[in-house]
Amino acid sequence: MTIYRGPQAFPRTEYLGRLAAVKKEMSQRDLDALVVTSASDITYLTGYTALSGYVPQGLVVLIAEEEPTFVLRRMDAPAAIYETFLDRIKIIGYPEALIGNPDTDGYDTIIDFLLESGLGNRGIGVEVSTLFFQTTEKFKRRLPKARIVDCTHAVAWIRLVKSDREIEIMREAAAISDAAILRAAEVIRPGVREADAIAEILGTLARGANGKPGTMIQQIGLCSSPRTGTCHIPWSEDVFRDGSQINLELGGVRYGYCAGIMRTFSIGAPSDRLRRIHDAEVAGLGAALETIRPG
Amino acid sequence: MTIYRGPQAFPRTEYLGRLAAVKKEMSQRDLDALVVTSASDITYLTGYTALSGYVPQGLVVLIAEEEPTFVLRRMDAPAAIYETFLDRIKIIGYPEALIGNPDTDGYDTIIDFLLESGLGNRGIGVEVSTLFFQTTEKFKRRLPKARIVDCTHAVAWIRLVKSDREIEIMREAAAISDAAILRAAEVIRPGVREADAIAEILGTLARGANGKPGTMIQQIGLCSSPRTGTCHIPWSEDVFRDGSQINLELGGVRYGYCAGIMRTFSIGAPSDRLRRIHDAEVAGLGAALETIRPG
Repeated sequence: MTIYRGPQAFPRTEYLGRLAAVKKEMSQRDLDALVVTSASDITYLTGYTALSGYVPQGLVVLIAEEEPTFVLRRMDAPAAIYETFLDRIKIIGYPEALIGNPDTDGYDTIIDFLLESGLGNRGIGVEVSTLFFQTTEKFKRRLPKARIVDCTHAVAWIRLVKSDREIEIMREAAAISDAAILRAAEVIRPGVREADAIAEILGTLARGANGKPGTMIQQIGLCSSPRTGTCHIPWSEDVFRDGSQINLELGGVRYGYCAGIMRTFSIGAPSDRLRRIHDAEVAGLGAALETIRPG
Repeated sequence: MTIYRGPQAFPRTEYLGRLAAVKKEMSQRDLDALVVTSASDITYLTGYTALSGYVPQGLVVLIAEEEPTFVLRRMDAPAAIYETFLDRIKIIGYPEALIGNPDTDGYDTIIDFLLESGLGNRGIGVEVSTLFFQTTEKFKRRLPKARIVDCTHAVAWIRLVKSDREIEIMREAAAISDAAILRAAEVIRPGVREADAIAEILGTLARGANGKPGTMIQQIGLCSSPRTGTCHIPWSEDVFRDGSQINLELGGVRYGYCAGIMRTFSIGAPSDRLRRIHDAEVAGLGAALETIRPG
């Protein structure tokens, strides 16, 4: 079955604008290539959201080429064709024999591409903080004449500045988060099992809001009495009880943009202590919102 | 609010048995300490399943001590008290000032603990493949007299051998996966939006089966026509159509044990090609099951 490009969340011009900002940064650092391996950065620069980053993959931005080249596992190349704005000749699928191979892996394919592009003796940026020890060593060993520069967070700083279309999508994600919190308020009741409440909340995160479905599920944290003081813990099979305090953390997702939100619920009247914490947090948030400004 | 130990999936004796196998391996490699940083290995050795591994944390197994010491972010210490079999004095929460600090992080707390335990000139195992470049360098720099040994996958090989109680929990996870696939077969119908089908499938993965809820959600892959050939891609807002072929990948989870399953659905009669692939896959699975044996 031939795979065609699917619907895109952003127009091609938006991706080219993001790449122009990246290339400007590369010029300032005197780099001819940047190997992007952070999954979030790859999503930002191409639109790719498939969950294939548990095996080696990388987006190679060349200063001399309009579109970057995406090197990934061959079985994931169709998803890259479907999801990204890239021309399919810019998508290189490496063979399955490189998976689980102790000697050669997908990073070798990326290094081969850099060598074939004649960049073996140029400045090459890598995101060291997303790479394992052996991979950084491999880049240095196989590109001995190149100047390998740590560009950790370089793309992350660029993507901090959001376009109007990005903000629109983030608002869609936030509407999903709001809908999930409202659903939580309906289903968190004495006698309801935590797992059953989570099932309803997950349903809302997938169905979405205003006709826009969620595009992924981020892990949900739910801590209710007697473990309200714990963090990042999964729900349990306990039932909610009168007097329970419940902390809920979730995030609606649209095209890789997640709008995180935390809410505390109280079954019955909250304690004075909880009420004071609530007032302090609202005051703190208000003070923060008054202080922040564009730029 | 004081946090107490919660219900445990395994008895203490089972964890001590797993640790005995790890210590035997450490002895064979002449190690006095093993720093376990793989989240799966930490779950295996303690029962901890909270999702705090996005910041530094590590379980330090000392050959001379019955229980290991769990070093993690202070805000996550209550979850460790609640979820693990460890005595709370074996749980060290490092302060929030070490989060996002470019100079000192949670790995320094682990190294401090090794130094205070008098192991600065002994054999110390680390799982290099789960550590970033800078962290491995830090272990070498701050423990210059120690013999740092790469123990990547050492615990993973030990946890390949499953106890009866583990197999029981894996069967519970598999029952949840089965229930989710059966629910998928009910809701994958022409005219149904992919996101709405996913909502129902997620609900089943959380509610669980036979009174045993799922304890986490693993990402679901759903690729239906016209993108059946893609992998690891999220669902979309499209509706299922007559003649669609749908690939679904999911896994029920119990206490960190995930039973992964993939199924292909066909709305209407499958093509001859799909039928031949199905027959070949069933034959391949049968041949594999005939070949494998204990040991």
